[in-house]
Amino acid sequence: MRTQVNPSLPRSLEQRVFDMYRRGLLGTTAKDVFGDDAPSLTSTTATAMVSRAIAADPGLAARYTWTGRLVAVVSDGSAVLGLGDLGPRAVLPVLETKCAFIRRISGLDAIPLVLADRGVETVVQTLSSLAPSFAAVSLEDVAAPGCFELERRLAESLDCPVMHNDQHGTAVAVAAALRNAAALTGRHFAEMRIAVVGAGAAGIATARLLLACGVRELVLVDRGGILSAERADLNDAKRAISTSTNPCGLVGGLPEALDGADALVGLSAGTIEPAALARMRRHPIILALANPVPEVDSEAARSLGALYGSGLATAPNCVSNLLAVPGIFHGALQARASRITQAMLLAAVDALVRASAPARPDRLVPHFADPEAFGRVSGAVAAAARTER
Amino acid sequence: MRTQVNPSLPRSLEQRVFDMYRRGLLGTTAKDVFGDDAPSLTSTTATAMVSRAIAADPGLAARYTWTGRLVAVVSDGSAVLGLGDLGPRAVLPVLETKCAFIRRISGLDAIPLVLADRGVETVVQTLSSLAPSFAAVSLEDVAAPGCFELERRLAESLDCPVMHNDQHGTAVAVAAALRNAAALTGRHFAEMRIAVVGAGAAGIATARLLLACGVRELVLVDRGGILSAERADLNDAKRAISTSTNPCGLVGGLPEALDGADALVGLSAGTIEPAALARMRRHPIILALANPVPEVDSEAARSLGALYGSGLATAPNCVSNLLAVPGIFHGALQARASRITQAMLLAAVDALVRASAPARPDRLVPHFADPEAFGRVSGAVAAAARTER
Repeated sequence: MRTQVNPSLPRSLEQRVFDMYRRGLLGTTAKDVFGDDAPSLTSTTATAMVSRAIAADPGLAARYTWTGRLVAVVSDGSAVLGLGDLGPRAVLPVLETKCAFIRRISGLDAIPLVLADRGVETVVQTLSSLAPSFAAVSLEDVAAPGCFELERRLAESLDCPVMHNDQHGTAVAVAAALRNAAALTGRHFAEMRIAVVGAGAAGIATARLLLACGVRELVLVDRGGILSAERADLNDAKRAISTSTNPCGLVGGLPEALDGADALVGLSAGTIEPAALARMRRHPIILALANPVPEVDSEAARSLGALYGSGLATAPNCVSNLLAVPGIFHGALQARASRITQAMLLAAVDALVRASAPARPDRLVPHFADPEAFGRVSGAVAAAARTER
Repeated sequence: MRTQVNPSLPRSLEQRVFDMYRRGLLGTTAKDVFGDDAPSLTSTTATAMVSRAIAADPGLAARYTWTGRLVAVVSDGSAVLGLGDLGPRAVLPVLETKCAFIRRISGLDAIPLVLADRGVETVVQTLSSLAPSFAAVSLEDVAAPGCFELERRLAESLDCPVMHNDQHGTAVAVAAALRNAAALTGRHFAEMRIAVVGAGAAGIATARLLLACGVRELVLVDRGGILSAERADLNDAKRAISTSTNPCGLVGGLPEALDGADALVGLSAGTIEPAALARMRRHPIILALANPVPEVDSEAARSLGALYGSGLATAPNCVSNLLAVPGIFHGALQARASRITQAMLLAAVDALVRASAPARPDRLVPHFADPEAFGRVSGAVAAAARTER
């Protein structure tokens, strides 16, 4: 399947993608343990000194092993990109990509760990046992609603930062992009009417963070329509967020949610019809972040005069959790924080907004590989973590 | 404690060792995901192609992720070097050292994973769940007798090579060294009387492999004396090996075990008195492999005219499991073996003997960093694995 049929043709994109991932994106390196001096420094006698020192003061493990800067990027493969439950092996390329980004932009080391067994108790048990192996846990592509309890239980059980990127990395990037988009379109951020489409991990976390940023008129929409306290079909996470969203008591589906909305945040897996989009205010803000296929394509957005962003790395205005995740972990570890708090996430939003200045319609947020944006997020998160101690 | 008191003095060995281990020995690298072409090759659209391909054929994970060549080096820290039960953080420098050796000599990637929870069921559950994350499990510094059942259960449960290095890596290196030592001292290997001192993980596995190599007159000694079927204080592993060792029914302690012995293999944590050593045959073979302090020092061995080896990386005749471990895993993975068998271990012994030729009294086995020895072990193990399929 991967064999080039006609070598005279340029290699297809598909071929080049599989070439990129061949043998994976990641590798390990090691100090030179075979060098001239090294044998006396890595002999069992020498290693025993370091082991004894750590046994006497376990905190030294962070200084004399790689575990002080190692992020475990963990998934059960229950929600692989927007593709659904493909299992632990199929999520590995996603985790390697995330690890590669973290490694290259932050200098932190990151390894993928995938779990064949599910269930909150099992995963908490597994990661608690492994906890001395790493400095932080980055959860990735874990399906809602299980991800909410899993993240909460892991944060309680582990004495290290734990964050579900699909939730909070996305929420931070979206909040920063919406603040910039509001400014660019002459709107007051906190007064915008915002419709978040998709009430999974990213949708619910984004709604929570936007509320914490001061947004009031927020509606969440899932396949069953606008979330409201009256709906009997909601899981616990949806019911909880339904009580603090939809303040005007809107009833209906996606078209009703978009009626007069300033901004649409797509965090679903579907597509949105032009007729529904036409109900938004003039010059709307559309962030269509479904992966790998956005809910709204750029042409449809352009025809509405919208300020448009997507999750596509190759397009302008890529609103990606990569903008936030490496800096949040780096800042948390710099400050030796043992958890990721809402104050740290809000600091990350502020930092991204500052890093965007001056924002432009074709540069709503910095490129996700912008080292300055990374540095600002890390610094702001570290400062917020130190303030909270 | 790590501060240099007088900068004008040369740095102490201790200082240099802690400098070597500062920030650990290991790191990760990643392909350039920020390069000009990379965004289209690592976008979610691109990653989704690879994830879908693996979902359709899980075997492709070994080709398109790093997991096909990743060795998890795993410990609970229950037997750290010869220092005892220092726990999971204190064993990390030992595991990083092993990973660094594996990485540099074999090109395989290796990461340390330590476990805070013990108990065979818990560890089997943890590693079974993590199994799609790696290609092989290298157990290290796990205490006997628990290590025997743990290794057996893991080998049964995981569909990948599992080996406890302290057992089999040591056994292979010792068997090769003893074969060479027999030849150098004009003895018939299979007819030697061999006393193995220490009936822990390494002692029992070494005894088993020596028996499989054809040795008949083998006695094992622990703190309670010579192992024999009559002793009521033996755990299951010791009782099992006691029935196939000590064919002459020797009774007593270490001095009686050494009476007329050709070779002593020290795999304990103690020291052996000169008076006991004096009971061995003339020009004995002494492998004193306790770490970090050998049971017999080189001076005492020299005074007996012994052919001497230790586990010390900085001395000649270092008989280390590093001689065997990287090649065994590399060969097993080359052959896509799903387990490590005795035939593969025996092939590794043969390969090490061939790689030693011509053996000399000061070069009983190759240096553990000898790439030719690594290559021969890998090739022989792969060939043996293919034969068994």
